[in-house]
Amino acid sequence: MENKTSTEIVKKQYFTFAHPPKEIILESGEKLGPITLAYETYGKLNKNRNNAILVVHALSGDSHAAGFYENDKKPGWWEDMIGKTRALDTDKYFIICSNIIGGCGESTGPSTINPKTNKPYALDFPIITIGDMVNAQKFLIDYLGIDKLLCVIGGSMGGMQTLQWVALYPEKVLSAIPIATTLKHSPQQIAFNEVGRQAIMSDPAWLNGNYYGHSGPKKGLAVARMVGHITYMSTISMEEKFSRRLKEKTNIFPSDKFSIDFEVENYLEYRGDNFAKRFDANSYLYITKALDYFDLSEEKFTQKNKNIKTKFLIIAFKSDWLYPPSQSREIVKLLKINGIPASYCEIDSSYGHDAFLVEIEKQSELIKHFLNSVVRENNIYI
Amino acid sequence: MENKTSTEIVKKQYFTFAHPPKEIILESGEKLGPITLAYETYGKLNKNRNNAILVVHALSGDSHAAGFYENDKKPGWWEDMIGKTRALDTDKYFIICSNIIGGCGESTGPSTINPKTNKPYALDFPIITIGDMVNAQKFLIDYLGIDKLLCVIGGSMGGMQTLQWVALYPEKVLSAIPIATTLKHSPQQIAFNEVGRQAIMSDPAWLNGNYYGHSGPKKGLAVARMVGHITYMSTISMEEKFSRRLKEKTNIFPSDKFSIDFEVENYLEYRGDNFAKRFDANSYLYITKALDYFDLSEEKFTQKNKNIKTKFLIIAFKSDWLYPPSQSREIVKLLKINGIPASYCEIDSSYGHDAFLVEIEKQSELIKHFLNSVVRENNIYI
Repeated sequence: MENKTSTEIVKKQYFTFAHPPKEIILESGEKLGPITLAYETYGKLNKNRNNAILVVHALSGDSHAAGFYENDKKPGWWEDMIGKTRALDTDKYFIICSNIIGGCGESTGPSTINPKTNKPYALDFPIITIGDMVNAQKFLIDYLGIDKLLCVIGGSMGGMQTLQWVALYPEKVLSAIPIATTLKHSPQQIAFNEVGRQAIMSDPAWLNGNYYGHSGPKKGLAVARMVGHITYMSTISMEEKFSRRLKEKTNIFPSDKFSIDFEVENYLEYRGDNFAKRFDANSYLYITKALDYFDLSEEKFTQKNKNIKTKFLIIAFKSDWLYPPSQSREIVKLLKINGIPASYCEIDSSYGHDAFLVEIEKQSELIKHFLNSVVRENNIYI
Repeated sequence: MENKTSTEIVKKQYFTFAHPPKEIILESGEKLGPITLAYETYGKLNKNRNNAILVVHALSGDSHAAGFYENDKKPGWWEDMIGKTRALDTDKYFIICSNIIGGCGESTGPSTINPKTNKPYALDFPIITIGDMVNAQKFLIDYLGIDKLLCVIGGSMGGMQTLQWVALYPEKVLSAIPIATTLKHSPQQIAFNEVGRQAIMSDPAWLNGNYYGHSGPKKGLAVARMVGHITYMSTISMEEKFSRRLKEKTNIFPSDKFSIDFEVENYLEYRGDNFAKRFDANSYLYITKALDYFDLSEEKFTQKNKNIKTKFLIIAFKSDWLYPPSQSREIVKLLKINGIPASYCEIDSSYGHDAFLVEIEKQSELIKHFLNSVVRENNIYI
């Protein structure tokens, strides 16, 4: 099982399972199958098959975490974290990045053809949860012949999947690094997601989800993404990046009313429009609901195993107001109460929630040392 | 000039001025006229005509600050602040609450009939600024025969008008109470407004502003208002009000996908829809632009008068993250640097930005004492 290391050419791979009648039963009780997961791997699985690290992605991420596709100039979303000598060192570890079900990174989701109707699922796609995403990834890990993961790591929704992995399969996860995440959404976090969903569903082009083959609710999705971007940045990082600078204007009173005046408006619209080109609006609905439904209260966290041995490193960022450090400290509290080994680090960054994608150097030092200790304590021969 | 005191029946009044060809020239250079301002008054103007307090309202407010309309059960928006023995005591003061131009509280705005075309202005309405709003109110104050205002007071956008009153007419304003406001919008504040505007303008029912006589962009406006409401509350007040409670449901997996699950979603949609019924979407565009354009940097604040004598009380609320206390402290700094007398009070409230409408008792004590000192120092006989 060899793969290109990062900063090299990588290829997306696909794993299909749960072929009917062996569909998987989702948390809602509904069935889903067949299921395809897109994934990528970097580095090499060792002989003992115990150097595997699972990277799980955030809302708008996908399985392309590192490296470059042939003829593509843009690397994966965590490129600086994954590769030779990097925190997730491909000389040492076998890194797997799995897409989620429900997403639109070529894994099974609402845009997939429903084999029962030969049309895209659209809203016939069942409601999915973070638990369902993790259960699907478990099939992939089994398929790759990995009994125990050295580590599960991810930020934001990736952090939720990380926590959920330990809650569902504590014996399969030696260590876990949930970054900038929470045990459950607060009403404010639900509210921001609901604004995004309403923006999409209010767009007449949404067509009650049946827009495949049509243009789709691009404007609604762009507005949803604009809201998202505001919450991903801190007031300080916005001030530093944009201040009150005008976009190519000297006169604040435009002849074209309500056109873009400020740089910050220009940025948000650019990011919103770009996102709407690449992301499936129904996926946005399903995934944000999965985020809102997620609730790993104490009973749920420990229900599978009262004696969790997984070792944790929890990372939060001071200026992150979407998933504030207080929510990470709640995770630490829950772990400590249950006697689960946990280190907590609050990184002093001004990048807000985006910091988990941006503050690579600060995170790398922590993650390297943490993984080294896990390797040492478990007598893993790399 | 007698008026009903608050907690009694009040009536909206109208003042029309700037009849062509005497239109007023706006900050943009465009002309506007005739202009009608809706306003209300409470209490009695004294013989010396020096007990008048101007109340200025926020984005979604209007001139109905106190009292009840005939056969109406809902009082004005600052009812508990205005009336006998209240902070703005109608036994002592003559309170004027003026609507703004551009607003939809029956004052001249984009929904008004343009006398030149006999159709609603729509986007032919000129861009307006906080300065234009204040200049229009100055006509009203002159008409009421008031040479000097004892005080100008308002929260949020009302706070901006308060600051602008002093910047434009320092000799007319004995004291000023800007509450939960700022000298200028940060990029984050601009960004939230731009999301609202994009939600409205992305709604096909907006018809490029020409929706009068049609249903109008109600969905887009509702989404804009939902975003607003999130920013008006604090994380704590949302947690206390909604937590993760479900709306009349026992099962989190609804048969009706993406319907309302959580109480917080229900609240936001109710508030959004209600707002869309009563507020003009174009007004929302014009007013939010006025907020974003507002910038009272030092030179602008003192340009009319280097020797401002107006006495200030600045109030901010600890949990207000839309107009955080740091922005109020910037106002205090500007005033102190210019030798302008200013007291600052940061109220320990969990209500977020809404606190200026909710924390009446805490504000009242401060305002009463402050106004008493202004009355005393200026030898005003009430």
